[in-house]
Amino acid sequence: MFRRLTLIGLGLIGSSVARRAMQHGGIAHEIVACDASESVCARLGTLGIAHRVEPDPTLAVRDADCVLLCVPVGALGAVAAAIMPHLAAGAILSDVGSTKQSVLGEILPILRPDIAFVPGHPLAGTEYSGPDSGFATLFEGRWCLLTPPAGTDANAIAAIEQLWQRCGARTRIMDAAHHDRVLAIVSHLPHLLAFTICGTADDLAGETREEVLEFAASGFRDFTRIAASDPVMWRDIFLANREALLEMLARFTEDAQAMARAIRWGDDDFIVDKINRGRAIRRGLIEIRQA
Amino acid sequence: MFRRLTLIGLGLIGSSVARRAMQHGGIAHEIVACDASESVCARLGTLGIAHRVEPDPTLAVRDADCVLLCVPVGALGAVAAAIMPHLAAGAILSDVGSTKQSVLGEILPILRPDIAFVPGHPLAGTEYSGPDSGFATLFEGRWCLLTPPAGTDANAIAAIEQLWQRCGARTRIMDAAHHDRVLAIVSHLPHLLAFTICGTADDLAGETREEVLEFAASGFRDFTRIAASDPVMWRDIFLANREALLEMLARFTEDAQAMARAIRWGDDDFIVDKINRGRAIRRGLIEIRQA
Repeated sequence: MFRRLTLIGLGLIGSSVARRAMQHGGIAHEIVACDASESVCARLGTLGIAHRVEPDPTLAVRDADCVLLCVPVGALGAVAAAIMPHLAAGAILSDVGSTKQSVLGEILPILRPDIAFVPGHPLAGTEYSGPDSGFATLFEGRWCLLTPPAGTDANAIAAIEQLWQRCGARTRIMDAAHHDRVLAIVSHLPHLLAFTICGTADDLAGETREEVLEFAASGFRDFTRIAASDPVMWRDIFLANREALLEMLARFTEDAQAMARAIRWGDDDFIVDKINRGRAIRRGLIEIRQA
Repeated sequence: MFRRLTLIGLGLIGSSVARRAMQHGGIAHEIVACDASESVCARLGTLGIAHRVEPDPTLAVRDADCVLLCVPVGALGAVAAAIMPHLAAGAILSDVGSTKQSVLGEILPILRPDIAFVPGHPLAGTEYSGPDSGFATLFEGRWCLLTPPAGTDANAIAAIEQLWQRCGARTRIMDAAHHDRVLAIVSHLPHLLAFTICGTADDLAGETREEVLEFAASGFRDFTRIAASDPVMWRDIFLANREALLEMLARFTEDAQAMARAIRWGDDDFIVDKINRGRAIRRGLIEIRQA
C-alpha cells in the first residue's frame, strides 16, 4: 500500500484509478491528482476523487512513493522529463500507455538510478474520455499487462501488480515488443479500420452518405462505437506503435485483397473458410469468457 | 391482413416474423412455416411458432395470399422457381434478402404476371442463426427497406409495408441499386473487414495468436461479434452484391493506405482529421437515435 499515490492525467483511466483508490482504502493513504488542463483541475475539485489537486506536476510528485502517468503516450516523455528531478528517492514510476516500446524508449534514457520504472497497460476503456467518464469498476476482471525492463526491482514490480489487482484487474508480465505486436492486432488495427471506414462513408456522395447514418445496420454501428474514441490518444498510439501496426495492417490488407479476389471470382470455399475462422475465434473468445 | 402467410426459411428472420405474427393477431389468420431442413421442421413442431409446418414448399404456398421468402439469397432463386407454379392467383411474393438487385435479377424473369413481387430487407439481426434465435421484437424500431420494381401493384406494396409495420418496423421504398450501395458500406463491408481481421489474427504465430484471444481488448472483441454471423448467408451476400461491395472495399483500401502512409511519415493532422470524422459520424448516429 502506498503512502502517497500521484496520478498525472485524469482522463478515463486516471480518473478511474482515482475513484477506485478513494473507495478501496487498500491502495494508497493519499491520492494526489495532477492534470495539465485547467478545466480538468477545476472539475476535479468538484468531483472529489482525490485528496488533493495539484496542477503543477513537479509539486504533485513531491514525496509520492508511487507516480502513475496516465497521459496520452505522445505527452508521456515530456511529463516524465519534467517530474524526474522532483521524484522522491526510491519512488516507483509507472504508466498506463497503450504502447510499451515507445514508452521505454522515452523513459529509460532519462530514468534516475534510484527510481524503479514499471510500465503498465490496463486493457480497459470505453469510447468516452475525460475525468467524468471514469468509474471505479472499469478494471474489474480486465488484464493489466506490465512490461518492466530487465533488472527492474522485483518489489517495485510486485507493488504495481498489487495496485492493479486491488483495482480489480489480473496482471501479466511480458516483453514490451511482444506486447506491442499483440496490441497492434487486438486493439490498434481494429481502431484504425473503424476510423477508416467512417471516413470512407463520410466521403460518399450526398444521398448515400445521409442514408449511411439512417440505415447504419449493426455492422457499421459497432464500428462507429470504436471510432468515437479520443483523437489525440489514438494519434499518439498509432505513431508510437508504427512498426507493429503497419505490419499488421499490411497482413490484413493482403488478406482483404485475397477475400476481394475470392468474391470477384466466386470462390465459395475460400469465402466460407474465412467466415468460419472468424466464428471459431469468436467461440474461442466466449470459451475463455472474454466475450 | 393476410388470410394465410407462408414463411419459407425459419432462421433468425423467418422465425422472428413467425413469432411476431403469432402474437400480434393483425398480421395473418394462419401462419404456415416451411423449411428445407428436416431438423428445423422438427424443431418448429416443438416451438409452436406457426399454425402449420409443411416441409414441401410447393404445398406450403398453396392458397397463401402472401409468401415471404426468408432463405439465404443464394438459395432464393431456386426456391422461387420451385414455388412459382404453385402460388395462388393474385398472391403477393416477398423476401428478406440483404441484396436486392440480385434478387430482382432472379425473380423477375420467372415472375408470373398475376403475382406481385415486393422485395424487402429488414435491417435487423443478431449474430445468431436458426429457428431458436428469433424473437418477436427483433424488428421493433428498425427499418425495413422495400425495393419494388417499376409497375408493381400499389396495393401489394402497401400490404407488405403494413406487414412490416405490424412487426414494429419503419418502412422506406427505394431503388434496388441504391439499396445495394448503401448496404455495401453500412453492413457488407463491415462484415468483410470483421471476418478478415479474425483470419489475420488466426494466421499469427503461436504465442501471439493465443494472446489475441486472451487479451482481446474492446476493439477486436467487437469485430468478433460481427464475425460470428452465419457463413452461408454471408457468402451469398458477398457474391450477390459483388460489384457494390468490391467498389466500397476498393475505396476503403485506398483510405486505409492513406492512413498507413500518414502513420509512417508522422502526418499528425491527417490522422487526427480522420479520427475526428469517425467521431462526427458517431455523433450523427447518436443524434438520429440509431446508436
